[in-house]
Amino acid sequence: MLSEFQLIDRYFKRSSRAGGPVQLGVGDDCALLQPPSGELLAVSTDMLIEGRHFFAGANPYDLGHKALAVNLSDLAAMGAQPISFTLALALPTSDPHWLQPFSEGLFYLADAEGIELIGGDTTRGPLAISITVIGSVSNTQALKRSGTHEGDELWVSGTLGDARLALEVLQNKRTLAPDLLAKASERLHRPHPRVALGLALRGIASAAIDVSDGLLGDLGHLLNQSSLSATLFADDLPFGDALASQTTDTRYALALNGGDDYELCFSAALDQHQAVIDAGHRSQTPVTCIGRLTKGSGIHVQDHQGNLISAVNQSFDHFN
Amino acid sequence: MLSEFQLIDRYFKRSSRAGGPVQLGVGDDCALLQPPSGELLAVSTDMLIEGRHFFAGANPYDLGHKALAVNLSDLAAMGAQPISFTLALALPTSDPHWLQPFSEGLFYLADAEGIELIGGDTTRGPLAISITVIGSVSNTQALKRSGTHEGDELWVSGTLGDARLALEVLQNKRTLAPDLLAKASERLHRPHPRVALGLALRGIASAAIDVSDGLLGDLGHLLNQSSLSATLFADDLPFGDALASQTTDTRYALALNGGDDYELCFSAALDQHQAVIDAGHRSQTPVTCIGRLTKGSGIHVQDHQGNLISAVNQSFDHFN
Repeated sequence: MLSEFQLIDRYFKRSSRAGGPVQLGVGDDCALLQPPSGELLAVSTDMLIEGRHFFAGANPYDLGHKALAVNLSDLAAMGAQPISFTLALALPTSDPHWLQPFSEGLFYLADAEGIELIGGDTTRGPLAISITVIGSVSNTQALKRSGTHEGDELWVSGTLGDARLALEVLQNKRTLAPDLLAKASERLHRPHPRVALGLALRGIASAAIDVSDGLLGDLGHLLNQSSLSATLFADDLPFGDALASQTTDTRYALALNGGDDYELCFSAALDQHQAVIDAGHRSQTPVTCIGRLTKGSGIHVQDHQGNLISAVNQSFDHFN
Repeated sequence: MLSEFQLIDRYFKRSSRAGGPVQLGVGDDCALLQPPSGELLAVSTDMLIEGRHFFAGANPYDLGHKALAVNLSDLAAMGAQPISFTLALALPTSDPHWLQPFSEGLFYLADAEGIELIGGDTTRGPLAISITVIGSVSNTQALKRSGTHEGDELWVSGTLGDARLALEVLQNKRTLAPDLLAKASERLHRPHPRVALGLALRGIASAAIDVSDGLLGDLGHLLNQSSLSATLFADDLPFGDALASQTTDTRYALALNGGDDYELCFSAALDQHQAVIDAGHRSQTPVTCIGRLTKGSGIHVQDHQGNLISAVNQSFDHFN
């Protein structure tokens, strides 16, 4: 059985890059970071719990990836450049067959984004993974939720609903062809945080939020910071291949209320329309205009004929 | 039943202080912090798990206090000024009778230290509390573990062993008079992080670590960063009132290997002896010189006659 300190040394301690922002990494009472000159620090924390956010026995490589990805998604939604992260990990046992792939999944994404694990805590307990990410962005370029304006267009990155579709298939609530399930499962298990898009949207988008609890719910949070209403064009919602194979009602339901998408929903002034499309190209991220912000309250989902589609806000809530 | 967002609004969302380092607090994708000019950020994460770090049914006010205190203790050991913290909380139910006192214990200490909760995550799950604290310190004044020098004196703050004694009494392994148990339990349940002392020791101490897993174990971590040996004078170890009531063997065992002390163990050059005493006075924190660093390896515990006391390193390990 590995001790706590052997475990940290073997799976989580790596050398800091010389000259980077991390002056002191894992192995002291605190990590020490050099903050980027003239920028604010962006900080976010998300926790994944077995049985709540993932099934017991879930693939540890995917878990390592996803635990970091969902946190990076929050930095992306602020337009922040990721710098580093901490990891608090409660584990039933210090099993190398779990720790090795978990750390590989974690560090694969960390390396892809150029960020360092700077500290954390490991303890025995029911499997829980809590990550805090730290990034940086200037005060004027941060994509705060409060930045929306009347008349702004609403956009979303990538596609919606496939992750939730995969979940419902795995829960035996729906069926799906194996090749489509494989694609949809990739979205559920290894979400790709839209960091590059968030950076490309600095100075272009007026506000952003990441879609983790379902588009309607998260858009509701964005609108809570203003006195604006959103009109969404249901026929413009970007579906993935798997969701495209479903009925219209299922497509709407899962794209609007699915959850686990980790796409960005953002607003931008009308005259930034082309700039948004260019930002999508620069960051190699599909972007789709899905609606408008107007005076009023609530979210109205219409089809192309202007008919209101009934779409109740069923944002995922961890306590209900 | 409270929803996740009602829960956050009711118990954890408070206004940011105008003009402070927190530019954007709870309620967006990330918090935004203004880093102090010219300083490094100190970051640390600790997680408390029910059944591992505290008993099921533990007093929620104390838990709120302790979860933050053990994190602040890490900042103290770096000589860092606390700024803010995030909280990831897994809860079996959103019970107001738990949340109200938990948040009161948490914010009592947060207010006492002048720091803000800037973000986090709440979810349903087995009770787990993960906190990340952020503070600041200049690179030249940070009390890194690697700063020890041959000939330095070793010091410890406050008293050792009472927390572990209380734990063993609560586990029915030992007995203690009720008034002494009350005092010792206070140390176990509401540790006082030595932030003021850490700040006062900037420029004076050469290295520091906080004593969370037992003096010998944590001192071992400090020595791991050098090629030095420590000699401890057992008769000089500072005991609390409760431990003073025990046999000599018990006193040594619990002061050396107890754990949960959250005192600072630090080194300072001989010519800083009076400066350390003055720093203790300035921060209203008792400090005691308990030994010396010399060439060699290992930790040697002696009595006043120079007899070696057998004291095996039984530092607490969460996986063994």
